[in-house]
Amino acid sequence: MDGLPPTLEKVIDGFSKFPGIGKKTAHRLGLHVLKTHTKEVEDFAQALLNVKSKINSCSCCHNIAEADLCEICSDQKRDKSIICICEEPSDIYLIEKTGFRGVYHVLGGLLSPLDGIGPEDLQIDSLMERVKSATELIVATDASIEGEATILYISKLLDSHPIKITRLARGLPVGGHLEYVDEATLTQSLNERVDLHSEV
Amino acid sequence: MDGLPPTLEKVIDGFSKFPGIGKKTAHRLGLHVLKTHTKEVEDFAQALLNVKSKINSCSCCHNIAEADLCEICSDQKRDKSIICICEEPSDIYLIEKTGFRGVYHVLGGLLSPLDGIGPEDLQIDSLMERVKSATELIVATDASIEGEATILYISKLLDSHPIKITRLARGLPVGGHLEYVDEATLTQSLNERVDLHSEV
Repeated sequence: MDGLPPTLEKVIDGFSKFPGIGKKTAHRLGLHVLKTHTKEVEDFAQALLNVKSKINSCSCCHNIAEADLCEICSDQKRDKSIICICEEPSDIYLIEKTGFRGVYHVLGGLLSPLDGIGPEDLQIDSLMERVKSATELIVATDASIEGEATILYISKLLDSHPIKITRLARGLPVGGHLEYVDEATLTQSLNERVDLHSEV
Repeated sequence: MDGLPPTLEKVIDGFSKFPGIGKKTAHRLGLHVLKTHTKEVEDFAQALLNVKSKINSCSCCHNIAEADLCEICSDQKRDKSIICICEEPSDIYLIEKTGFRGVYHVLGGLLSPLDGIGPEDLQIDSLMERVKSATELIVATDASIEGEATILYISKLLDSHPIKITRLARGLPVGGHLEYVDEATLTQSLNERVDLHSEV
């Protein structure tokens, strides 16, 4: 970009490193900083620094946390006997919107032998500890090969353990049209069809 | 957003104040900060602070600048006799891409009596000073009512001054189809038609 002060260039560069932000958007955001009140920009910069210095991993579920335990693990009203297993902390906030009231366990990845990610790279040991006091385990991983591999691995580990293990249903997206659904989804949807009588 | 640490909430709030960034994108950007290397986040935060503390307005053209003069005004290779008048510094970077090699003058707004913006709110006095040493003035404002009013006001001010005043051409967007062009644009395009012989 011709003629931009180097200081502003740096901010634009910074913005463009975020996912989904291209050069043009970064440019617009950078120019917006100029128009923003100094106090507001200072607060934002401080908040960015605080996130890196104050936030760590929950010692129980490996979700992001400011204290030793995350807000979910330290909430007495949550049902600790149902553990939902996620890949990343960001998945938790998607599931929270469904109204789920159990607790979580963040694996920190999915099994992927091709990428060299084995069970020892994931938070599986600590999961096995927690499983002892739980009644149901919901494996909420992506519907990908890695997600399936991870579900399979965890369910095998717990083969001899008297615990209910479930995974998210596969099927038609709510509001989706049949004609736009791919073959694999439709096949799963058919296989996992629900009895109308039992549903009510 | 349920269960998010307050520190992270603040960063997400900060992101969502930027133009074009909704709650969902802000959330994704906030979580990205967590994954980003601390050094990189610190650099970004510092760059934000630098922009507010180091960048001011060019004393000549009112473009953004780190020194007393902006990079364009202090460039000896630019043609100082052609001044392009813009509303905001951000417009400069659009015009720079066209390969324009003159200089700029930022008005800091457009005349808008309804919003109470009069000539005294714009950088018009300093423009009149600069005009003395220029040969051409290009008024590159929006093709809006405010833009037209501003063009008219400036050209009237300079009525008795022997200077060429031009404005950007109105017409078909390059690559645009005739059937999608609005009536007003087509009318202007017809009025400002170009002689094929004189164009070559």
